[in-house]
Amino acid sequence: MPREFDRGYYRQPYRSLVSDYPDESVYPLDSFRVEWGAVFHRGRLDGSARVLIIGQDPATHETIARRILVGEAGQRVQGLLARLGIDRSYVFINAFLYSVFGQGGGARHIDDDAITRYRNRWINAIVADQSIEAIITLGQLADTAYQQWRATPKGAVNTAAYRTVRHRTYPESASRSGTITKAAAFAKLCESWNEALEVLHPLITPDTPVPLRRYGTTITKSDLSPIPERDLPPGLPSWMCALDAWALRTGDSKQLKRATITVTVPRAARTWPILPG
Amino acid sequence: MPREFDRGYYRQPYRSLVSDYPDESVYPLDSFRVEWGAVFHRGRLDGSARVLIIGQDPATHETIARRILVGEAGQRVQGLLARLGIDRSYVFINAFLYSVFGQGGGARHIDDDAITRYRNRWINAIVADQSIEAIITLGQLADTAYQQWRATPKGAVNTAAYRTVRHRTYPESASRSGTITKAAAFAKLCESWNEALEVLHPLITPDTPVPLRRYGTTITKSDLSPIPERDLPPGLPSWMCALDAWALRTGDSKQLKRATITVTVPRAARTWPILPG
Repeated sequence: MPREFDRGYYRQPYRSLVSDYPDESVYPLDSFRVEWGAVFHRGRLDGSARVLIIGQDPATHETIARRILVGEAGQRVQGLLARLGIDRSYVFINAFLYSVFGQGGGARHIDDDAITRYRNRWINAIVADQSIEAIITLGQLADTAYQQWRATPKGAVNTAAYRTVRHRTYPESASRSGTITKAAAFAKLCESWNEALEVLHPLITPDTPVPLRRYGTTITKSDLSPIPERDLPPGLPSWMCALDAWALRTGDSKQLKRATITVTVPRAARTWPILPG
Repeated sequence: MPREFDRGYYRQPYRSLVSDYPDESVYPLDSFRVEWGAVFHRGRLDGSARVLIIGQDPATHETIARRILVGEAGQRVQGLLARLGIDRSYVFINAFLYSVFGQGGGARHIDDDAITRYRNRWINAIVADQSIEAIITLGQLADTAYQQWRATPKGAVNTAAYRTVRHRTYPESASRSGTITKAAAFAKLCESWNEALEVLHPLITPDTPVPLRRYGTTITKSDLSPIPERDLPPGLPSWMCALDAWALRTGDSKQLKRATITVTVPRAARTWPILPG
């Protein structure tokens, strides 16, 4: 049975965007994992996207699958899109091409001119090429990226609806700082996502109409949606779209940990005859 | 500065070939690492290829880069192409879509009907779409794959020159079996590659004309050629094309080793500020 796959960057203007992009002369190595390469997008680049989501930066799973927001965080956002009735007409980009390294690296460089200029080229390409009805940003840095774009002539005249929601990793990061419990942080996340749902649900043309269904006070496994296979390059195993984690930074020292990613086929996908010993 | 990248499988017939390909119902899990997905090709699919190389099966580096023959073995063949004056007008496919697992798995299944039929679709697509002047197979199983294709009506009428050479991993595998020293095995490999060079050098239209330059009695680092960046999907770090190894199967048990690949940025590419501790 034919499977859909992401055809990638063969069309203009995306072809040019991925053949000439900022390197470590723009993204400093003390703040970005430039050594793992750039990860550009996930979703439609064929003119059919109606929702643009701007995230922050690629993480471990994204580095291997070479598409952004495929790990658990991406699956949370995929769940948000499902509640908007959007199961294919979306496109994701990130504020940063490379994974942020260390504390504060993202905040320090979100205003950098060359980073912003390249990102604005992507946003302009997407809104010119596709009929974007709504833009959603995930977290503060992505919101800043959006505001920077709105301050440009092309951004200023854009009429897409806009909401920013708390970053999908907010509960983990906020509770780590100790000022809020994880449960309370999840409730705040859900509140912000519910508010976006209420504003955008009536405005977006759905792929599959669904009644408005609010989040509770936390995100559970059942609120995650797997990444559609059609979002990945061809030939990738289907566990790379599924809910189990499969990529991890490993290494015994900080230096080696920065240099290493270990990919492990999830237990559920180890369907080969068991190997003893 | 713009970088070239592989645009992938957006054209027909390749688009159909990578959206409908054999899975574990055709490639048995006891003989193939189907769980890591299929890796289809490397090189030109735009009509410009003049040399088709058929290898055996994808290995560890190939599984991560999602293009075949990018590890050291591929760099040896890249060196052979360079001696033919071919630095871009080539395309590689493998006899098998998935990595062979265990001893003899490849030999057991090289004749399988569904595996052969799908492979022949690729060969037919390439020779119909591109002006292939020569076909080179790497090792016995690839030679068998070629002969199977020649036994079909479309294969029988094809006029491309043909040579088979010893598999690029022959020195390691032959010397492990103990019947030949590694040095003698390397000499045999070089002899077979020299014979192919002599036959094909005058027949192939080069990208960059070069005088015929034979191999010595072994393959050294200087006989390897790095993989051109244009053969990889966009955004991949350039060390994935370079000569240092960067992917390894790890894991403490056979079961875990089958489930795990560790990717490590080579030392030379760790250009970030050193991280103590």
